[in-house]
This record gives sequence, structure tokens and C-alpha cells, in this order.
Amino acid sequence: MNEKIVKPSILPGFMELTPMDQILFNRMKDTIRRNYEKFGFLPIDTPIIEKSEVLLAKGGGETEKQIYKVVKGNTDMSLRFDLTVPLARYVAQYYSDLTFPFRRYHIGKVYRGERNQKGRFREFYQADIDIIGNGTLSIINDAEIPSVIYSTFKDLGFDSFTIRINNRKVLKGFFRNLGIEDSTMILRSVDKLGKIGIENVRSELSEFDLSEDVINQILEFISIKGSNGEIVNNLKSLNIEDEIFIEGVNELEVVSRYIGMFGVPEENYQIDLTISRGLDYYTGTVYETFLNDYPSIGSVCSGGRYDDLATYYTTQKLPGVGISIGLTRLFYQLREANIIESKDNSLTKVVIIPMEGYMDYAIEALNSLRKANIYSQVYFEDGKTGKKFKFANNLNIPYTIAIGKDEVDNNKYTLKNMITGEQSLLSIEEVIDKLK
Amino acid sequence: MNEKIVKPSILPGFMELTPMDQILFNRMKDTIRRNYEKFGFLPIDTPIIEKSEVLLAKGGGETEKQIYKVVKGNTDMSLRFDLTVPLARYVAQYYSDLTFPFRRYHIGKVYRGERNQKGRFREFYQADIDIIGNGTLSIINDAEIPSVIYSTFKDLGFDSFTIRINNRKVLKGFFRNLGIEDSTMILRSVDKLGKIGIENVRSELSEFDLSEDVINQILEFISIKGSNGEIVNNLKSLNIEDEIFIEGVNELEVVSRYIGMFGVPEENYQIDLTISRGLDYYTGTVYETFLNDYPSIGSVCSGGRYDDLATYYTTQKLPGVGISIGLTRLFYQLREANIIESKDNSLTKVVIIPMEGYMDYAIEALNSLRKANIYSQVYFEDGKTGKKFKFANNLNIPYTIAIGKDEVDNNKYTLKNMITGEQSLLSIEEVIDKLK
Repeated sequence: MNEKIVKPSILPGFMELTPMDQILFNRMKDTIRRNYEKFGFLPIDTPIIEKSEVLLAKGGGETEKQIYKVVKGNTDMSLRFDLTVPLARYVAQYYSDLTFPFRRYHIGKVYRGERNQKGRFREFYQADIDIIGNGTLSIINDAEIPSVIYSTFKDLGFDSFTIRINNRKVLKGFFRNLGIEDSTMILRSVDKLGKIGIENVRSELSEFDLSEDVINQILEFISIKGSNGEIVNNLKSLNIEDEIFIEGVNELEVVSRYIGMFGVPEENYQIDLTISRGLDYYTGTVYETFLNDYPSIGSVCSGGRYDDLATYYTTQKLPGVGISIGLTRLFYQLREANIIESKDNSLTKVVIIPMEGYMDYAIEALNSLRKANIYSQVYFEDGKTGKKFKFANNLNIPYTIAIGKDEVDNNKYTLKNMITGEQSLLSIEEVIDKLK
Repeated sequence: MNEKIVKPSILPGFMELTPMDQILFNRMKDTIRRNYEKFGFLPIDTPIIEKSEVLLAKGGGETEKQIYKVVKGNTDMSLRFDLTVPLARYVAQYYSDLTFPFRRYHIGKVYRGERNQKGRFREFYQADIDIIGNGTLSIINDAEIPSVIYSTFKDLGFDSFTIRINNRKVLKGFFRNLGIEDSTMILRSVDKLGKIGIENVRSELSEFDLSEDVINQILEFISIKGSNGEIVNNLKSLNIEDEIFIEGVNELEVVSRYIGMFGVPEENYQIDLTISRGLDYYTGTVYETFLNDYPSIGSVCSGGRYDDLATYYTTQKLPGVGISIGLTRLFYQLREANIIESKDNSLTKVVIIPMEGYMDYAIEALNSLRKANIYSQVYFEDGKTGKKFKFANNLNIPYTIAIGKDEVDNNKYTLKNMITGEQSLLSIEEVIDKLK
């Protein structure tokens, strides 16, 4: 025995699951991947470690403070903190080998040294898709993205969710028309409308250097409600002649019409003029997705359109549109809300339990089941029968097959449904029929 | 435009694939995963960063020199260098929540600061399975592992491969019987038999302090050849009375008999007394797997039985048996040997190419195809028709559907087979039938 035992533990802020929860997590990840692939997105898998000068080319801000540096030799290296910067580097690096529009998905771990708090993770999965154009990219792409979100969240088992859509050009043009060039702070207040209500937004806005009239126009603007068609008409009727505004409204109109054509039901998407997305690189369409029964979870899938993906790595103009699902956080929140339950989470369908001396018969049955592609295993260990059935129970394995003298004499197997307790003596063909 | 462009590049020793190669890589990874799951192995996914004191509990050796340290705050952290240490930590940490025997698989990236050379990677995927017993673990498990290897490599498309099997107890007992307690250096020479031949092994052995008679006995021992049954009989007829030797021969006999029972054909496994596996923690059965048509690739899947998995983290005795596939290296080598070709590697089955003004019809067709679960996409961008077909060609997408005036007037679609060039005018139902 070893004298020096190290306490087995992981770092704070890292998620680690039991195998049974891991199966559920993987199922979510697989569902997302399947949908991304179905819509024509190609996989990439970039290194988790990159040169710091590449990852931090943009530099500054929270990112730099949260980054994990990696030490080995003299190269300045870091762990990636998102999948967008590696995408930008990738597209710039392999530009001449790629076929545009380049649809790529990437599901992988990223690292951020966030302050340690419940529900915040320092290592987490992002599941991203982006469509990158070479020079230009049709606005129709912006309309297809919500259909990927819709298909994915449907397949994840959600019915009631809303994809909220806006266009940064509408906001930019509207504020420019009011004489406001930098609307960052205002947008931050406006974004809180749903949470704090109109009067609180008004009092926040009154702290900026804005006239009463301007404040009223802003509040009126963000109060525009109605069907998607009504909102577009309402925006048009404002008769704002700012070019960017007009372009934004046109885009919003095209996008919202085509989203419907791509099969997303009207109740699942909604123009929302208060959505602006914090990240400053979005330049057109923006998306946020909310589970209507769990509003406190916040947006579960966000993204938007950007003018130029890889400005730090190439002079090529690469406009794009994309979204990201924060998978680790989403799983955590769904589990906290008891939406994810640990059942139906066995990959194995049946455990074969041989009585002493019947191992060879058990393996014979195992071979037949596996040949029929029924996921099965034999409990090989010695021990009491009760313990063996408990093995199946603990792992939520739905069936057991007992093999002993009676079974061998009759060339039959005792198949037990571990949920109902029901037992029956069946031939191997009958077992396969039943479990298929 | 940005004045400061950072050259887009990755660190040396890291593998990054084109999307088309990534599809092939993922297919391999999925095949391995499916096989692991079919045999009852449960998934785990541990953090890539762990406390250095945990990862380096064993300490010393190459490992410590190759490790990537991670810097953020004051905690001493590192990147995992294999999946075995995290498994040991995991099993010790969640011991009371796990159900034994614990079958787990883990496919994930690990990091080693190896010297930079062709075919060596600093970030690479390992695909591991292990079966961990609580106190004891039946020898039958050792016999089932080769059937996982067999099933996996068959599914990966290989027919001619040999799983070489040995037992460390046989070696240990044999050498102890010769009065040699530490056989490490001798085993290193013996292991080279296949490469350097018997006479070179003899001359290497003559440099140790061994009598002529002992050297002859060693050479005779490692020259034992024949069917698995013949080798076992040959070992028995040596009449060596060392207890460990006898135990080892018995294990080898049981394991080789049961491997056949688990459905592995005799031509795919072979007892090989020269196999010893470098790692010192193997204590019984050991495996190496070779592709017979590509011997220079070396072992593509290795592993074995160990007495105690988690001695550094718990006083619980946890014997186990497992194997590992070095997926990144394997993929690299197969590609270098031209075994992996970039064809049949499109996930998308068909690209719809609308002529100008026919976008809405294209999206309608897209919806029908996707509803039938045919992976499809529309080429949305403006441009010359030739460029649009080239998009499908570049991405190896096997079919295109053209939509223009003729097609809309006839309510039919021109389906083109991009490989044969064959075209036909079909209704959407006929298209779906053809592509399903």
C-alpha cells in the first residue's frame, strides 16, 4: 500500500458528471451535432492550445484577464476562450483551400478564468455554427439560421421557445437619426426592458445627456409590439430617412419573411427591438433564444451577423453569420430546473447473469444478442445473485437474462423486465424479437 | 482595414485537418465510440486541466518533463497527459457512487510536450476502455477485451490484423525461475525480436551478466511458436515450477480459449511471448494489435491487466484491464499510407441550385428534402452557374438539383449525379425516392 495518498479532487469551476448523467449530456451534444450536420455544416476541430499572439490579436478587455496561459518551453501559448477566434484564424490560414460559403460547426471545450460562482464554468463546451462568405454573403443565410435553432431545440425536446430577432442596423440608424452616434450605454439600458420595466428604463436613460423628447422617442421605439409583419410596418411608418435604418428594416423584413419560409412557425420567432447583443462585432441580424417555460435561464442560443470575421489575420473580407449554444451551462441549468431526469439513460439493453458453472452458455447468448446489435453484457464476477441483479438496477439497464440449469435444460432464457418485474422463459430468437 | 495583421498559424506538433478530412476522422472516432458503447462501456468526460499534485501523484520519469503547466492565479495546474490518471482519480473520487465492475470509455485529447518530429503529436486523441473491479475482477474480462478490439477494427474497415497476447506473469515467472529478478532490460531486447532477428537479440543478451545456458533458454523460450493451443502446451511442457509462471500460463490458457468463445477468429489473435509492454504497471494479460498489411505502423491498440488502478488516490484495491487507441497518430499514419482517401466524405447529399428569381421554389424543395431526412442545402449566393456547381464538386456532394423556369413550369426538378454526370427531370417524390 502507498503511504502517500493524494486526495482525489478536481479544480473548482469544472464540471464533471456521473456516467449516467454523461450519457444524457452526450445525447444532447449528439442531437446538436446531428442537426448542424443536417443543415450542411462541416466539422472542424482546432487545437485547444494556440499561440497567445493569435488568440489575443484583438486584445484588451475581459478576455485577456480571463485567459489561461500555458507554459512549456519559450512559446507564449494560451487555451482558447471561445471558438470564434480559432475559426477566424482557421479561415484566414486555409482561405485558398476552403470552399465558400463555408459552413462550419465546431463543438468543443473552451476556457475562461471566471470568478468562481454557482453555474459559471471555467471549462465549458460551446457548440457553434457559422456561415462565412467570401466578400459577400446573402441575407437569406440570416433567415436559415433560426431554422437550425428551431430544428435543434425541437429535437432536444422543447416545444415552447422563442427565437428573438433584431437588426443592429435598425438600432444604429435609429439612434443616429436622433443624433446619437455611440449608443452602447443606451442599448445596455434598453436591453433590460424585459427585466426592469419601462419606467426604470426611463429613469436610467434620464441619467444620460438626452432631451425629454429623445427619451420619449426611444421608449416609444422599444415599445413597438405586434406580429413580425406589424413591427416591420410600424418601423417603416416612422419615416426615418437614415440610410442604415432603411437598410436594417429591409433586412429585418426579408429575414423575418424567409424564416417562415424555412418552416419555423410564427409562434417560435419574434422581432424584438430591445435585443442588441453585447458583443460589438455584430453588425446586422442578431438572435437570442429563450425557453418560454424557464425564462430565468436566459438566452440558450445567441448569435448574429458580422461584417468581417478575420480582420486580425487577413485582408480578405469575410462576412458571416452564426450562433452559439453554451452546452455545459445549458445542461447544468436544465438539470437544476429538474428538466433533465436520470432515467432511460442506459445504453446497455440487457445484462446476462449466469449461475455458477454456466459462463459458456452466457457468452453464447451474448454473441447472439450482439450479432443482432442489441447492446448487452455478461456479469462475469462471482457473488450472490441479488448483487448481480442490483448491478443492472443501479445502471438502469432495463432487462436481465438469467441462465442456470433450468434454462440450459430447456434451451431457453429467463428474460426479466427490471422495471415491471415481469419474467418470461424464451428462446434466444424470442428474446431478440422482444428486445429489438 | 487593420494595419496589424497577425500571421494565422498553429503551434508545431498540433494536428489540424481540412473539413473533408475531419469528416473521415470523426467517422473513425464515431466507429470506435459505437463499438465501445455496444460492449457496455459507459462514457466519462473529465477536465483537461487538473491539479498538478493529482496528475503527478506518481511523479518522476518522462511524464513530468513532458507536462504542460497552466498558469492562472496561484493553483498549480497542468494539462492531462493521458486518460488513465484521470480515470484513477475519478474512480477513487466517486468510488461510493459507482457500480462495479465499472466499464468506462473515454475519448478525449491529451497533451505531451514531445520532441517535435514527423508523426509525433503534442495534442492527440486517446480512445480508452477499462473495466475496473472492486477488490477482484474475473479473468474472463481479459478475454472479452480482444473481442472489442476485433469488432472495432473490423468496423474501421480492416480485415487483416492480429491481436498479440501475452501474460506478464509468464515472463516474470520464467525469468525468476532463471534466477533473474529484474528482467526489464532483457525484455527490452526480447521485444525487438521481430525487428532485429534472433542472432542480434543473442548478441544484445550476451552483454548482460548471463550464462550461455541462460541465454539459450531465453532464446528457446521466445522462439516458441505455433497455434495458441500449441504454445500453451509447449509452456506447460517446460515443467517450470515457479508459482507465478504456472498462474500466468493458466491465465493465458483461459484467456486464449475464451477469446475464441467471444467470437474472435483464430487468425486474428496470437499468443506472442515477446510482447511485454513497456509500462510497468501491467501485471497480467497484455495486448498489442498490428495491421498485417502495414507492419511499420506498429501497434495500433495496446493495453493489459493491472493489479491496482488508483493506488495514489485511495486504499481501495481496484484491479482492472483496458486498452487504448492513439487515434490522432493512427489517423495520421493511415493517411500517410494512403489508406484513407478523401472520397465519400460529404455529409450533405444534395445542393439545390436555384436560377435567379427561383429562391422560394428552392427553399420549398429544401424543406421537403429535409423533412425526408435527406441532408441538403441551397446555394443562396449570386454568381455564375458554373461556380455553383463547382461548390458541390469541391465538397464532394454527390447530387445537385437545378431549379429554373423549365423546372417550375413542369413542377419537376433536374437532379444531377455529380459523379456520373447523369441528369433526370423528376418530381420531388421521385427525387426523395432516389436519394433515400
